[in-house]
Amino acid sequence: MEQLFYLSDVFGVAVFAITGALMAGRKSMDLFGVLVIAITTALGGGTLRDVILDNHPVSWIRNDTYILVAVLAAIGTVLWVRLTRPIHENGLLIADAFGLAVFTVIGTEVALQHGTPVSTAVIMGVMTGVAGGVMRDVLCNEIPMIFQKEIYATACIAGSLAFIGLLHLGVTHWLATGLAMLVVLLTRLAAIRWHLSLPRFHLLDRV
Amino acid sequence: MEQLFYLSDVFGVAVFAITGALMAGRKSMDLFGVLVIAITTALGGGTLRDVILDNHPVSWIRNDTYILVAVLAAIGTVLWVRLTRPIHENGLLIADAFGLAVFTVIGTEVALQHGTPVSTAVIMGVMTGVAGGVMRDVLCNEIPMIFQKEIYATACIAGSLAFIGLLHLGVTHWLATGLAMLVVLLTRLAAIRWHLSLPRFHLLDRV
Amino acid sequence: MEQLFYLSDVFGVAVFAITGALMAGRKSMDLFGVLVIAITTALGGGTLRDVILDNHPVSWIRNDTYILVAVLAAIGTVLWVRLTRPIHENGLLIADAFGLAVFTVIGTEVALQHGTPVSTAVIMGVMTGVAGGVMRDVLCNEIPMIFQKEIYATACIAGSLAFIGLLHLGVTHWLATGLAMLVVLLTRLAAIRWHLSLPRFHLLDRV
Repeated sequence: MEQLFYLSDVFGVAVFAITGALMAGRKSMDLFGVLVIAITTALGGGTLRDVILDNHPVSWIRNDTYILVAVLAAIGTVLWVRLTRPIHENGLLIADAFGLAVFTVIGTEVALQHGTPVSTAVIMGVMTGVAGGVMRDVLCNEIPMIFQKEIYATACIAGSLAFIGLLHLGVTHWLATGLAMLVVLLTRLAAIRWHLSLPRFHLLDRV
Repeated sequence: MEQLFYLSDVFGVAVFAITGALMAGRKSMDLFGVLVIAITTALGGGTLRDVILDNHPVSWIRNDTYILVAVLAAIGTVLWVRLTRPIHENGLLIADAFGLAVFTVIGTEVALQHGTPVSTAVIMGVMTGVAGGVMRDVLCNEIPMIFQKEIYATACIAGSLAFIGLLHLGVTHWLATGLAMLVVLLTRLAAIRWHLSLPRFHLLDRV
Repeated sequence: MEQLFYLSDVFGVAVFAITGALMAGRKSMDLFGVLVIAITTALGGGTLRDVILDNHPVSWIRNDTYILVAVLAAIGTVLWVRLTRPIHENGLLIADAFGLAVFTVIGTEVALQHGTPVSTAVIMGVMTGVAGGVMRDVLCNEIPMIFQKEIYATACIAGSLAFIGLLHLGVTHWLATGLAMLVVLLTRLAAIRWHLSLPRFHLLDRV
C-alpha cells in the first residue's frame, strides 16, 4: 500500500514533467530548457512546500529517482513528438488530473504532520498540486494557466478539504487518501468534460 | 502596544491582499486566481524573508488569521468592485503606504534579531515590504511596478535605515518603530503627491 | 588557496551583478530596480541552493561583503555606461563564463558536503550557476536567455560532472576544482566563439 502510494507519486512526477516538456517545446526551447522546465514543473510544487514548512531534506535531495524519472519523461516526450505524432491531448489531461490528485493529498498530509491549522494544510495541498505548473508558466513567460482556465485548483481545494474532513470523521488513512484523490480526479475530469469554469473577475468592466 | 503592532501587521496583510485582487481583476483572472494573487501579495514578502533567514515556522503556518484576512479582503474587493463602484485609488495608495511601513519595520526587526549585519537587515526590510508585490506582478506577467514607478522601495530603505539608526542611538524600541514607520509613510506619500521618481537608467541611450 | 577561492567567488558576484545591471538598463528601470536586479542575479542562485539544501545561514546573511560588492558593481556599471561608453560585450561574456565556472563548482561542492546523490549535486551546481540569471530574466519579463541561447547550462553540467568524476578518481580537491572550472570556462568560450547551440525542440512543427 505504502508502495502503491510511492508509485503514484513517481507517476505524478512523470506526468507533470511531460506537461513541462510540451510547454517548453511550444516556446522552441533547447534541450536543456526542456529539461529544466520539466524538472521544475514536476518537483517545484513539493519543493516550495517543503521549504516553507521547513520539511528537510526535500524529497529529491536524498532520493534521485524523482529527478531521473522527470529527465526520462522529458526526453521521452521530445523523442515521441519528434518521431511519431502529437501527444494525445485528452490522455495527457487525464494523466495530469491523476498527478494533481496524488500531489494534493501528499501536500495536505505533509502539512498536517507538521501540525498546521486546516487553512494552511489546504493551501499546502493546493500549492503542492499547482505551484510546479505556475513556475512552468512563469518561466515560459505566460500568465499561469490555472488562473484562467477550467476549474483546476478548485479541484485541489475540494480534495484537500475532503481528506481533512474524512480523517476528522475517523475514516482510516488509506480510505481517506483514496476518496480524496477521487474527489480531485472527478472534479477535474468533470471540468474538462463540460468546460466548467469559475466566474472571472473583470475589473475593467467597472473602472 | 504589542497588540497595536499585531493589528497593524494584519492591516498590512489586508491592504496588500486588496492590491493583489485588483491586479488579478485587471488580468481577468477567475476567483481562484484572485485568491492566489491576493495571498501571494500579502504574505509573499514575509515568507521569502523567513525562508532565507531560516526563521521557522513562517508566520502563517501556525496562525491562520493571516490567510483568513487575506482571503476575506480579496473576496470583499471582488464584491465591492462588482456591487458598488471602483476602489478609490488614492485611498488605496495611502493604505498601501501604511502596509509598506509596517512590513518594512517588521522585516528589519526580524533580521536584526537573527544577528545580521546592517546591509542584510536593510535588504530584509525592503524584501518584506516589496517582494509580495513583485511576485504579484511576475505572476500577472508584468515587469514589477516598483522598478519603474515613483519612489517606493527607496521609502523602505530610508525607513529601515532610520529604524536601525534610532535603535543604535538608544531610542526605545517603540519610538524607533513609530518614527521609522513615519519615515516610510511620509516618503511614500510625498512621492505619490509630487510624482517623485528616481533617475532611470536608460542603457539604450548609450549602446 | 582558500583565499583565492573566496576571491573568485566575490569576482563571480561582481560579474553577475554587472550583467543584472545591464539587463535592468535595457528595461529602463530606475536606480533601485537596477540594484535589485543586480543583487538578485548575483546572489539568487546560491540563495536558492542554500534554501533547498537547508544550508543555513545563507552566505550573505552573515557576511555583507557579497551585497556590498554587488551594489558597488551595479553602481559602477551605471556610471561607466553613463560617463564613458558601452560595456565591452566580449569582455563581459568572458568574465561571465568565469563567474559561471566558480559558481558551478561551489554549488556542486556544497551539495556533495550535504551527502546528496550525484544527480542532485549536478542540479545544485547548475542551479547555483544559472538560477540568478533566470530570476533576472523573469523579473525583466523575458523568457530566460539560458533556455534559448548558446550552450550555457550545458557547460555547467559538464563542469559539475567533471568535478564529481575527478574527486571520485582520487584527484586532490584543489586540482579537481581547477580542472572542473576549466571545463566550464572552455566549453562556454567555445560556444561563444563558434555560436554552438543545443538542438531546439520545436513542438509546433508537429502539432
